[in-house]
Amino acid sequence: MLGLMQDWPLTVDKVLDHASANFSRREIVTRSVEGPISRSDYGNIARRARQVTNALRERGIKLGDRIGTLAWNTERHLETWYGAMGMGAVLHTLNPRLLPEQIAWIANHAGDRVLFFDTTFTPIVQAIAPMMPQIELYVALTDRAHLPQADIPNLVAYEDLILGHDADAEWGGFDENTACGLCYTSGTTGNPKGVLYSHRSNLLHALSVNQSDGFGCGATDVVLPIVPMFHANAWAIAFLAPMCGAKLVMPGAKLDGASVYDLLESEGVTFTAAVPTVWLGLLAYLRETGAKLSTLKRVAIGGAAAPEALVRAFEEDYGVEVMHAWGMTEMSPVGTCGAPLPEHAALDHDGRIKAKLKQGRALFGVEMKVVNDDGEALPRDGKSSGHLMVRGPAVARAYFKGEGARNDQGECLEPCGFFDTGDVATIDPLGVMQITDRAKDVIKSGGEWISSIDIENIAVGADGVACAAVIGVRHPKWDERPLLIIEPRPGAAPDKAQLLAHLEGKIAKWWMPDDVVLVEKIPLGATGKINKLALRDQFKDYALPSAG
Amino acid sequence: MLGLMQDWPLTVDKVLDHASANFSRREIVTRSVEGPISRSDYGNIARRARQVTNALRERGIKLGDRIGTLAWNTERHLETWYGAMGMGAVLHTLNPRLLPEQIAWIANHAGDRVLFFDTTFTPIVQAIAPMMPQIELYVALTDRAHLPQADIPNLVAYEDLILGHDADAEWGGFDENTACGLCYTSGTTGNPKGVLYSHRSNLLHALSVNQSDGFGCGATDVVLPIVPMFHANAWAIAFLAPMCGAKLVMPGAKLDGASVYDLLESEGVTFTAAVPTVWLGLLAYLRETGAKLSTLKRVAIGGAAAPEALVRAFEEDYGVEVMHAWGMTEMSPVGTCGAPLPEHAALDHDGRIKAKLKQGRALFGVEMKVVNDDGEALPRDGKSSGHLMVRGPAVARAYFKGEGARNDQGECLEPCGFFDTGDVATIDPLGVMQITDRAKDVIKSGGEWISSIDIENIAVGADGVACAAVIGVRHPKWDERPLLIIEPRPGAAPDKAQLLAHLEGKIAKWWMPDDVVLVEKIPLGATGKINKLALRDQFKDYALPSAG
Repeated sequence: MLGLMQDWPLTVDKVLDHASANFSRREIVTRSVEGPISRSDYGNIARRARQVTNALRERGIKLGDRIGTLAWNTERHLETWYGAMGMGAVLHTLNPRLLPEQIAWIANHAGDRVLFFDTTFTPIVQAIAPMMPQIELYVALTDRAHLPQADIPNLVAYEDLILGHDADAEWGGFDENTACGLCYTSGTTGNPKGVLYSHRSNLLHALSVNQSDGFGCGATDVVLPIVPMFHANAWAIAFLAPMCGAKLVMPGAKLDGASVYDLLESEGVTFTAAVPTVWLGLLAYLRETGAKLSTLKRVAIGGAAAPEALVRAFEEDYGVEVMHAWGMTEMSPVGTCGAPLPEHAALDHDGRIKAKLKQGRALFGVEMKVVNDDGEALPRDGKSSGHLMVRGPAVARAYFKGEGARNDQGECLEPCGFFDTGDVATIDPLGVMQITDRAKDVIKSGGEWISSIDIENIAVGADGVACAAVIGVRHPKWDERPLLIIEPRPGAAPDKAQLLAHLEGKIAKWWMPDDVVLVEKIPLGATGKINKLALRDQFKDYALPSAG
Repeated sequence: MLGLMQDWPLTVDKVLDHASANFSRREIVTRSVEGPISRSDYGNIARRARQVTNALRERGIKLGDRIGTLAWNTERHLETWYGAMGMGAVLHTLNPRLLPEQIAWIANHAGDRVLFFDTTFTPIVQAIAPMMPQIELYVALTDRAHLPQADIPNLVAYEDLILGHDADAEWGGFDENTACGLCYTSGTTGNPKGVLYSHRSNLLHALSVNQSDGFGCGATDVVLPIVPMFHANAWAIAFLAPMCGAKLVMPGAKLDGASVYDLLESEGVTFTAAVPTVWLGLLAYLRETGAKLSTLKRVAIGGAAAPEALVRAFEEDYGVEVMHAWGMTEMSPVGTCGAPLPEHAALDHDGRIKAKLKQGRALFGVEMKVVNDDGEALPRDGKSSGHLMVRGPAVARAYFKGEGARNDQGECLEPCGFFDTGDVATIDPLGVMQITDRAKDVIKSGGEWISSIDIENIAVGADGVACAAVIGVRHPKWDERPLLIIEPRPGAAPDKAQLLAHLEGKIAKWWMPDDVVLVEKIPLGATGKINKLALRDQFKDYALPSAG
């Protein structure tokens, strides 16, 4: 027997329509790519988004067609976003930080028919346009006066594209499982893989992320999403801000400390979200200038683990509450948030700071467990680390066109019903998760796991160390044993015994590295992370003294 | 093209499983019907709920069967709730405040196979059991020692029913649109009508109600739902508290001021919800005893308009934030909440209090409009009042078995896609809704509407007035004109001119009543509201002086 409630498909056009009906005059403020601050509101965004829809329909775009964007967070990007999604086209955000050839490869793989781009990226677009024959139309997200003089075919200015089009258009009316957004994630091996969000998954995810113990935004909030829309839906902010009527402040192309600070203060921002590197830039600016944060209440930090110094600076020096979050593109992306629990009230200040260094607890709609190599669930004791597995309505079950799938059918990423995040983690008795390693970086010694990250975090605090990496090296008895690789600070020459003594007592005895080597430079990947793949290759034949 | 996200049906078993996985030790505290305070937790509730499932399955209960409850808010009611819903049976809450014959009529109409009841209601159950031949099993929500000696067939104590049953049972696995809960609403005319909630509607509604600008509860909250579970899902609290991991305090049978105060203080309650009459009882107790509220932060008031004195008492005397909410059984039930908007920050204290007297703005997932008699949408100007129409995933589209439907098929309550709430309201430019009347009470004069509630609220403030009612009386020229009916305070004798003078300048000239009559007693209905039906009948032939 079915219930007798109304049929109301969960499509994201309803998000902007809700904002337009209830918060039509709430501001969207953009630091435009052209330079000046620009002011719009939800009513205006909703009308112009429908003009985008009509312009796309006129050019033959239909349900399921992919629309690429190579763009910063701006009001025009938001209009394009809802204009495409509202009509059932798939908004495909391209990451401009990738190599131009990668961008072209991804746009081709996605089959993008139109590419909207910010003029910042004109040189990239001009360079790769010849590689993307299926793109029928290039739209520069600007007006005619700022249209770049470039050798790009079928190029039109955004304002010309939508000019004269009706501000009314039919939206929605399709299955809520219809594809809505597409975002590629690049692994360390293989080709980038596309995560194909549905209307339903995006809407449910936004409702979950915006619960009180998540981002918890409301109509009196002023939200600055520094995390880009091309970074997995700006962590749901592109949906949850219109959903709750928060004022939106869009930073455009300028993400340096001074520019971010200027927006925070001039627009009265109360909540913002970004990766740690952005915050390090802001804090450096604050320290240099002695400036204070007068309106900011909460900051979400994710994308990489939040360093303790960063958490302390926000909480102790600037009175801003830190929300540590974790997720991945395949999770829409937010999986956990670190809102305090009643049990944390008993902790002293240092204890509360330490608790914030964990990645937080699962949002409603995220089932989470850690399992051993045999897939058996491990206890939630805060010690047993295993493969972090997740399940939920906003978790990917397959990649676009079957890329990277794990079975022959090219479909299923979750043979046991759970998606393997590739992270290794513990979950404590309070349900709080902590990432201990990437599965591919964990060291397997005598059937037990050693966390490379834990050892690195301690080793980097030893005298004379600039950077530390730990990798597993083949061992005849234990399979693998840890090797500590050290890049000394300029002029320093830390010795092996001193480095090992620094670790002594801080990690389990059997985690102690079997050897230490000093290198001139530890290789970093494109995103600034240690390139373990290169290190493993470099030291693949390394003979540990313990190997006899 | 469909998205590639996991299939994760929105069934409410996931709510309790989320609580059990993440907040297993968070307390559920009950003032038991037997007397003592009882303490459980989400882990325990989840295990015992599955014992209920296994006990019901053993007795042949299956998907879609209706399970009645006649019960207070207690841990056992919560276990029965999830035990029935988790297996796909329909949890049917009966309202013990109805007449016994009405309860029997409703249980028969619903086809309840089992009735769980609190021993408070043993006399009622004994009286009506002979009228309910289809009930196969009566379960007293107590242990064997407290099992009532009563002439009730197939009677078993709850603790005996679940004893020995496995604490594991398969839940979910069915369509998310499966019926989940059943709650009857009694109109002033016709038979009671059953609203049949689905798993999907309950889950989406809870996610919406618990947004920051709704109830906004989190894991550090301690929530006391005084509003009963038989009153439309305890305003979603039975779902949203386990969803966010809030500690739950269940008041059992004692809802008087002293008992409520005792729980608020002894359990550290931070958020609570109830109808105005409960709060008047609490405030009377506080004034008598001089007691203060030391932990309560927020209170939701709904079910009837919150009087200004009540709002002021909470906010001014006790520092508790009032959240005015509105909804109805057919809306799961919450439709609007009165969280402040940025525009309210500019108001002075009195202005903010006045703003809280409106019923609030639509939650995400509630589309709302006011229309005239022709169904045309009226402007959101805060003045144009019309029929309040709603649409959304948690709004009823039909009643159980087609009762009260408006077309021949007995199915559709929403021929235009919107459900007519029967309320007359305005919506202001900020999206804030205010109920001005029930549609059946509005007075139609010369094609324009006069709000009976507005005039009554002013008239009741005149000297010597105990109660005031305004009804429409036939008029040859204007169709209807307002008649003011006054019940004087004992010993008082207000005169007509003085009463009209009191209204002068406070309402539009053409709203002024054409006549005033004094009566000994204004008739009240079962819920304490003015019985307008009786008044209209009493004055149906009243000759207005203006009628010539």
